[in-house]
Amino acid sequence: MEKGRVTIPSESNFLEETKRLMALWGADAIRDSDGTKLDDELKQIGAKIYTTYFVARGHNDFAEKHLEEVQQAFLLSERVTATKEGVVIPFLNGYLAEQLQPNYREDPKAWWEVYDRTTGELVPAEDWEVDQEQHLVTLKAWHPYHEYTVSFLASMVWDPTQMYNHITNDWGDKPHEIPFDVRQPESQAFMSSFLTNWLAENPDTDVIRFTTFFYHFTLFFNDQRKEKFVDWFGYGSTVSVRALKEFAKEYGYQLRAEDFVDEGYYNSTFRVPSKAYLDYIDFVQRFVAKEAKKLVAIVHEAGREAMMFLGDNWIGTEPYGPHFHEIGIDAVVGSVGNGTTLRMISEIPHVKYTEGRFLPYFFPDVFYEGNDPTIEAKENWLTARRALLRKPVDRIGYGGYLSLASQFPEFVAYIGEVTEEFRELYDRIHEVKPYTGLKVGILNAWGKLRSWQTHMVAHALWYQQIYSYLGVLESLSGQKIEVAFLNFDDVRDGVPADIDVLVNVGDAGTAFSGGKNWQDAKLIATLTEWVASGGGLVGVGEPTAYLANGRYFQLANVLGVDKELGFSLSTDKYFKEEVSEHFITAHSQPADFGEMQKNIYALSADTKILRYLDGSVQLATHDFYEGRGVYFSGLPYSPENAQIFLRALFYAAGKEAELNKWYAENPDVEVHAYPAKRQYAIVNNTDQEQVSVIYTENHSYTVTLAAGAIEWRDYDE
Amino acid sequence: MEKGRVTIPSESNFLEETKRLMALWGADAIRDSDGTKLDDELKQIGAKIYTTYFVARGHNDFAEKHLEEVQQAFLLSERVTATKEGVVIPFLNGYLAEQLQPNYREDPKAWWEVYDRTTGELVPAEDWEVDQEQHLVTLKAWHPYHEYTVSFLASMVWDPTQMYNHITNDWGDKPHEIPFDVRQPESQAFMSSFLTNWLAENPDTDVIRFTTFFYHFTLFFNDQRKEKFVDWFGYGSTVSVRALKEFAKEYGYQLRAEDFVDEGYYNSTFRVPSKAYLDYIDFVQRFVAKEAKKLVAIVHEAGREAMMFLGDNWIGTEPYGPHFHEIGIDAVVGSVGNGTTLRMISEIPHVKYTEGRFLPYFFPDVFYEGNDPTIEAKENWLTARRALLRKPVDRIGYGGYLSLASQFPEFVAYIGEVTEEFRELYDRIHEVKPYTGLKVGILNAWGKLRSWQTHMVAHALWYQQIYSYLGVLESLSGQKIEVAFLNFDDVRDGVPADIDVLVNVGDAGTAFSGGKNWQDAKLIATLTEWVASGGGLVGVGEPTAYLANGRYFQLANVLGVDKELGFSLSTDKYFKEEVSEHFITAHSQPADFGEMQKNIYALSADTKILRYLDGSVQLATHDFYEGRGVYFSGLPYSPENAQIFLRALFYAAGKEAELNKWYAENPDVEVHAYPAKRQYAIVNNTDQEQVSVIYTENHSYTVTLAAGAIEWRDYDE
Repeated sequence: MEKGRVTIPSESNFLEETKRLMALWGADAIRDSDGTKLDDELKQIGAKIYTTYFVARGHNDFAEKHLEEVQQAFLLSERVTATKEGVVIPFLNGYLAEQLQPNYREDPKAWWEVYDRTTGELVPAEDWEVDQEQHLVTLKAWHPYHEYTVSFLASMVWDPTQMYNHITNDWGDKPHEIPFDVRQPESQAFMSSFLTNWLAENPDTDVIRFTTFFYHFTLFFNDQRKEKFVDWFGYGSTVSVRALKEFAKEYGYQLRAEDFVDEGYYNSTFRVPSKAYLDYIDFVQRFVAKEAKKLVAIVHEAGREAMMFLGDNWIGTEPYGPHFHEIGIDAVVGSVGNGTTLRMISEIPHVKYTEGRFLPYFFPDVFYEGNDPTIEAKENWLTARRALLRKPVDRIGYGGYLSLASQFPEFVAYIGEVTEEFRELYDRIHEVKPYTGLKVGILNAWGKLRSWQTHMVAHALWYQQIYSYLGVLESLSGQKIEVAFLNFDDVRDGVPADIDVLVNVGDAGTAFSGGKNWQDAKLIATLTEWVASGGGLVGVGEPTAYLANGRYFQLANVLGVDKELGFSLSTDKYFKEEVSEHFITAHSQPADFGEMQKNIYALSADTKILRYLDGSVQLATHDFYEGRGVYFSGLPYSPENAQIFLRALFYAAGKEAELNKWYAENPDVEVHAYPAKRQYAIVNNTDQEQVSVIYTENHSYTVTLAAGAIEWRDYDE
Repeated sequence: MEKGRVTIPSESNFLEETKRLMALWGADAIRDSDGTKLDDELKQIGAKIYTTYFVARGHNDFAEKHLEEVQQAFLLSERVTATKEGVVIPFLNGYLAEQLQPNYREDPKAWWEVYDRTTGELVPAEDWEVDQEQHLVTLKAWHPYHEYTVSFLASMVWDPTQMYNHITNDWGDKPHEIPFDVRQPESQAFMSSFLTNWLAENPDTDVIRFTTFFYHFTLFFNDQRKEKFVDWFGYGSTVSVRALKEFAKEYGYQLRAEDFVDEGYYNSTFRVPSKAYLDYIDFVQRFVAKEAKKLVAIVHEAGREAMMFLGDNWIGTEPYGPHFHEIGIDAVVGSVGNGTTLRMISEIPHVKYTEGRFLPYFFPDVFYEGNDPTIEAKENWLTARRALLRKPVDRIGYGGYLSLASQFPEFVAYIGEVTEEFRELYDRIHEVKPYTGLKVGILNAWGKLRSWQTHMVAHALWYQQIYSYLGVLESLSGQKIEVAFLNFDDVRDGVPADIDVLVNVGDAGTAFSGGKNWQDAKLIATLTEWVASGGGLVGVGEPTAYLANGRYFQLANVLGVDKELGFSLSTDKYFKEEVSEHFITAHSQPADFGEMQKNIYALSADTKILRYLDGSVQLATHDFYEGRGVYFSGLPYSPENAQIFLRALFYAAGKEAELNKWYAENPDVEVHAYPAKRQYAIVNNTDQEQVSVIYTENHSYTVTLAAGAIEWRDYDE
């Protein structure tokens, strides 16, 4: 087998060891990392060279001369309660002055807004004044004991990623990188000319690793130098008066500060997006695509490749969006935390290749004496591998200090195995479609745009409010299921014909459950008809939730359950008995439901309750004409839950008979089949030996798999 | 001390034993019970005789001849999903035909309603037809896959209480008592003439125990002869076409079926009441008061007393309502389940006396060989006694089969002690006001009308959704707090001057939390100003909850906490540390919070967190200008929680210094002082010996109390 498909970091004065590890791991590309530089010698050893490139930061010589072109954001002040004496709002309170400064260049009266947050009403501009010395807004007319806020335009004078690294690593007086806005004329000109020059000056760089383009996801720090607000999807830092004016010209209406601060929620990806925000997203994406395309063209003209990092200043590039293809980027690289993030990268369309950066990052937090970095590496690999087997990234790689990793021989050896296993896997399957038994549509307010990106706040961080929902995508990321991401418009007039099961997951009111979308009778009727005609609906958490017309779950009739909010306590709830046997739980233990739900009750005896805990239905199914509803109160990821979820999907689709095809009874084992090659893989997703009954196309047998093993077999074996 | 103030049940052939127990318990009144009759001899032994009297049921000779005057209710059918083929609604499905029959006497087209429950739209009457043979409604125009319901007028042909007893006790072919509607002319005439005759025929009856007047609380049974819907406060069974027409004439608008079926919630007491429902309540109360007054006049003319039972057919009498006083009833008797229900009875205004029926009822479910009925009696007495010490009922009593109770000598002896203790207590305090340190207002959508009646579904039944809130009233029922019940109109223009602390308790959206009332900026501003000026606000559960303007708890600024619904996950929540010391928890263990809440977070470091569990604030306080907010996630009743709540109230009022006055450190002990008499009682609320430090007006000492003891002392002792 050929070597390659592996990228490693390197650094100064590390030539020989780099060569050794390249050989051992079969690496064919070398990258720099934050804080490392590659020596010239290193660039001559035959590897492809990736170089990190910042478009809109890291050029303070330019930025300091053009502070009028610094990036901007609308910020919301704290809420201040008015008294009879009046109300004065120190609107900068709580923000980090090193990052965020009021932008007095633009007329506050034109762009800022003062809101009465008790009534939700805008205060007329003539009723307030700004003190630009003390950064105060004083109201001239007010209602005592109402709460008021100021939404103000701020200049972002510190790139959030550099700020984060700077503060975390205590970089002292190292200059703060000022992000500039390439929508502005000088910045626009600068970014192209600088890149052209840079390419000329860096002839050894084969791959320009854009990190990333123009606008950072929303990340504001507080006055304690700690994170105050973070939304990995947020378009908050793309704003400028120029942008707003261009938007108004194109769309025929003016966006206001409130369209961005959104009552303080800042259009979090958990909010059902407003029409204005969706328009604005499209507006920014088109701009970013147009401008990024120019840079890619420059790179291509210089005979190099353009790669983008999926993160940091990625706003506007959303790879599943309608404009990404316009950029013409060659490759995307992103960090792989689990199966879901692997698929998020590997499924990206319109690129020549994708690359996954695996964990651990070669940093001292993991690579220190006495710790075994192999543990994290194994977990990362086994977690992601099941997703690779569905749709592999084209390359894998690592980041950090290679000199640190090289001191851990067991780790070095293990990565040797991983890279070898990856290449074999890739060779076998990258051109063939794996067998899928069902097509499932994840239904939420974002749909395709945020494929594999539901319920994320900050990249891969744990939140109590989301882990019970993350099991849905994590399960699917490595299962024999084709996955589509659909928004409500995609199904309003009819569910796409190839969908077997729709899945709606999340807390009431969020973009993921759907919130006010469930007000729409058309949507409800379409989905009701679709299930009645044989479709399957799986709801997790508070699916289809919107309090109206005597129901909380608007598809309670399909799901067979609803949630008691207190109003219907007077109606007796008789149905609490669990069924003794059910296809879904036939050979796995009852699942863990994570945070669970309270007060979920079965509507009638027709609802089959599989799990009833703490006075509430946690898992139930319900036949609805020709179709079925399935309800889970929560579904954190575990192998057992993934298997139960898989069974639930087949059950919802009425395809129970097809489950036992390319299936393993042991939830720690999975089977992936590739019909075009008549081959299949049996994988042990754990670090222990596993035994399982395996179902192939038409027979079954028992297999014993070594820890972490992947076994490739022919259909006829 | 005199005997008396005690009512006992008796029965046929039980003369001598009745005399013995009367003497032993100091009883001065005898009552009949369900299924018992008093012999004539018994009526001559010098006791007052109470006789149960049914106004609008138990007269089938009359009712069967006037079925056109039977009581009625609007019922909602099950929701039926339309298909392309159509929709047919078997609207009686799920109702008990023995109780409820469609009323075809009144034109369905005029009074029934068909609703599209997917859109919330009324279907025009010309678009549906009723099949009166098969009890089906068929739509002539419909939207496929919408859900439809029929709201129909039903005749109630079985009194719900008799039905319940009949079914529970398996009374076989005993006739079903048909309730008739005294708003109808024949019934109206009958009720007065019958009572007049009855009084003449029952000269030995001293007290007519109305059980009760005209309309039963809402209680529908299902086709399995089990309870389907129960609302102890429901006005659903007061309806008739005549009533609706009279209402329209008086109020200038027509009520429709939907005003009663209310999307299926039937105006549960948990619903924030609509204007129409409040109008209708007033309308019924005025009618009931007017008609009951006539009956009371007849009783008085005959030289007897009129007593009403608080329950069963009590709808329209609500004793805390504005029209109750018009009835002129002499007494109210009700069942005492705990301190709250004791206060619910003892505080009733405009009567000569109140009577509490204590537990256990002398029925075989408790009085059987091998069981000790004294246990329930003790628990009932000790639970209610702390409320008696705040405001006693004027009499106590028992119900059931006296012959059964008399077989349990220990029980008989214990009731002897209880009755003696009651009389002593009553003699000492019934004319004096106990010391109170604070005045607390319970703020909800019902206010005074439902004093001591919050969060009740069916009388005293346990529900998972309410027990965490019941601790508020149960605590207050026996504490040195003056309690007022306020609705939102009562405080909108200003909180009454004598209120120290407002308490808002319940689940979001319910009448008890307040739901859409919290949309009102005036209310919010008034309460904000009031707390800022020194008031205290205590919130329990989801207080002031209404999602708007960036907040869920509309008074989050006062309470210092809000609830995360998912939209603000992007905002970092840093405040999780519990304070090490706090007045509220100074000498009791942290409380049990019942069902608790999830996702409650502190807004800033200014919020003092007393308890942080499961990722959520459970107990916190917050200073707000001159006043304070206190938040509890739940407060089920326990002595420890009651004490913590008491401390929280004093803290919220900023009157911590006054807590240690007539106060016991041990939560199982309480102190009740009566300034006008310069006496106080120390009570041990448990069945074990207790030791406590006691704080009097100006000093403290330690006391040891025998199990269940009450010790009376003078201030100067």
